[in-house]
Amino acid sequence: MSRLSLLEAIKPTTFLKVPRLCKKLGVELTLASETFQQTGSFKFRAAYNLALNVTNSHIITASSGNFGQALAYACKLLGKRCSVVMPANSARVKVEAVIEYGAKADLIDVKKISRADRVRELAEADPSAYVASAYDDPLVIEGNATLGVEIAERGGFDIVIAPIGGGGLSSGIITGMKRSGFQAKMIGAEPLMANDAARSLRAGYIVKNETEPQTIADGARTVSLGQHNWPIIGDGMLDIVEVPEENIIEGVRLLFSLANLKSEPTGAVSVGAILTQSELFNNRSVCAVVSGGNVDADVYKSIL
Amino acid sequence: MSRLSLLEAIKPTTFLKVPRLCKKLGVELTLASETFQQTGSFKFRAAYNLALNVTNSHIITASSGNFGQALAYACKLLGKRCSVVMPANSARVKVEAVIEYGAKADLIDVKKISRADRVRELAEADPSAYVASAYDDPLVIEGNATLGVEIAERGGFDIVIAPIGGGGLSSGIITGMKRSGFQAKMIGAEPLMANDAARSLRAGYIVKNETEPQTIADGARTVSLGQHNWPIIGDGMLDIVEVPEENIIEGVRLLFSLANLKSEPTGAVSVGAILTQSELFNNRSVCAVVSGGNVDADVYKSIL
Repeated sequence: MSRLSLLEAIKPTTFLKVPRLCKKLGVELTLASETFQQTGSFKFRAAYNLALNVTNSHIITASSGNFGQALAYACKLLGKRCSVVMPANSARVKVEAVIEYGAKADLIDVKKISRADRVRELAEADPSAYVASAYDDPLVIEGNATLGVEIAERGGFDIVIAPIGGGGLSSGIITGMKRSGFQAKMIGAEPLMANDAARSLRAGYIVKNETEPQTIADGARTVSLGQHNWPIIGDGMLDIVEVPEENIIEGVRLLFSLANLKSEPTGAVSVGAILTQSELFNNRSVCAVVSGGNVDADVYKSIL
Repeated sequence: MSRLSLLEAIKPTTFLKVPRLCKKLGVELTLASETFQQTGSFKFRAAYNLALNVTNSHIITASSGNFGQALAYACKLLGKRCSVVMPANSARVKVEAVIEYGAKADLIDVKKISRADRVRELAEADPSAYVASAYDDPLVIEGNATLGVEIAERGGFDIVIAPIGGGGLSSGIITGMKRSGFQAKMIGAEPLMANDAARSLRAGYIVKNETEPQTIADGARTVSLGQHNWPIIGDGMLDIVEVPEENIIEGVRLLFSLANLKSEPTGAVSVGAILTQSELFNNRSVCAVVSGGNVDADVYKSIL
């Protein structure tokens, strides 16, 4: 099997300029949409880089979301085994996607065992396996840095805004832009319900949520920033906008109606942030990252 | 006001390769999505070329759909006046879009006056105005030919398939591909309910529907092919697949679930055609044109 390099395997982001959305938001806006990335979200950048660079032939992760699908497909392309621990009550489309991408979906009853404990069980059963974090790993940051480089190459932005959960995307973009010598300011867009990153930035150290916050932006349901992400974010992030749920939902609607773009709720937090704190963005040239497009039809219908 | 050339004003089409969709359809498929074109559909290519090349400073059209929006925006960019005759009961989002793009929405009660008659009234009131057909005009064909050229430049396709209504898109693509010396076979995708083009191709002359067929693919609700389009289509079109409504709907769903692509029903007729007559496409390299993405949220929800 021929091994594609990272830059051969990923798709470039899709930059979109939409006059009606600019007018509505009062911003000179360019979307950087990762909805057409392999497996439908930016996570493939991280997952492929990780699967490419670890020597282990079996990779285990606990992600019922985009990272699970991304890692499954990356491992398929690289001829590696992949196990994705998922709650048995995960949306069927997500389980099917993981299986279709060639991984083993390890379904658990989260009332009986936590995802972390199940990952430990699997790792003990196969000590040669690599346990992959969806965000807290230098290989993840390095994979996501490719998006920062693409944004820098496009150029002309005062501000780049991206959704923030565990911090893998933001730290990657900051890393990539810095490497390219690109000076745009980085702003995070975080659900207000899950505002640990914003609190961390204010405190100067990692602040954790007590449990996974149940924001509609399921990609941001993380307990805290990762240890590897925090120094990069603490140093390189100008600000984090805390976005109420209703503005996340309105972001999905605006992308649908004015940009013809199907975004998952997490992907629309960037647009929601512009709605929430418009004075930060007005009349500036802004690149807003739409991080992914994978959303269940039922959820999407209820939002529309 | 600086006048952009046609190639400066349009956006290149968005080519998407989606492994899961290829696998589902059994086709080596590339989507050519016009959903991110200016005003959300391929019609802008035609409208801008028309508005750019007629000397009249006022253009009138009767289109409640994508051509109305496209012409409105093209005229705005070119500093021309535009009147769009629309039924008063058109979807509000469509009326708002035409107005936001800077045109006059001329709302009529279709029980009292037909759109064609109202266009005649307006043209009599302003004899200096140009009356624009959405499909039957050499300037429309020439504008849409830019998409054929882009497909030829991308290259590598055995078959190109595009939705067909009045024939403006297909005749444009055929013209552009021929000019580029590109040999792919052109196939039309037509709603079975509105199969006048398929019947015309079989008969060897233009066959008309008795009324506008009420297919869900509202962009194909045309009575017949245009006089200018027919010779090009009769000569250059290999075949036309007649697509049942349920396959159009399934096409919209597959684009949503496997490609993260928001398509209007008309845009998904190409994918519906592959579902309908898969033996024409199996294991071939196919470029399927998704002609536009403008669909009301309520219609879209009911499809999902």
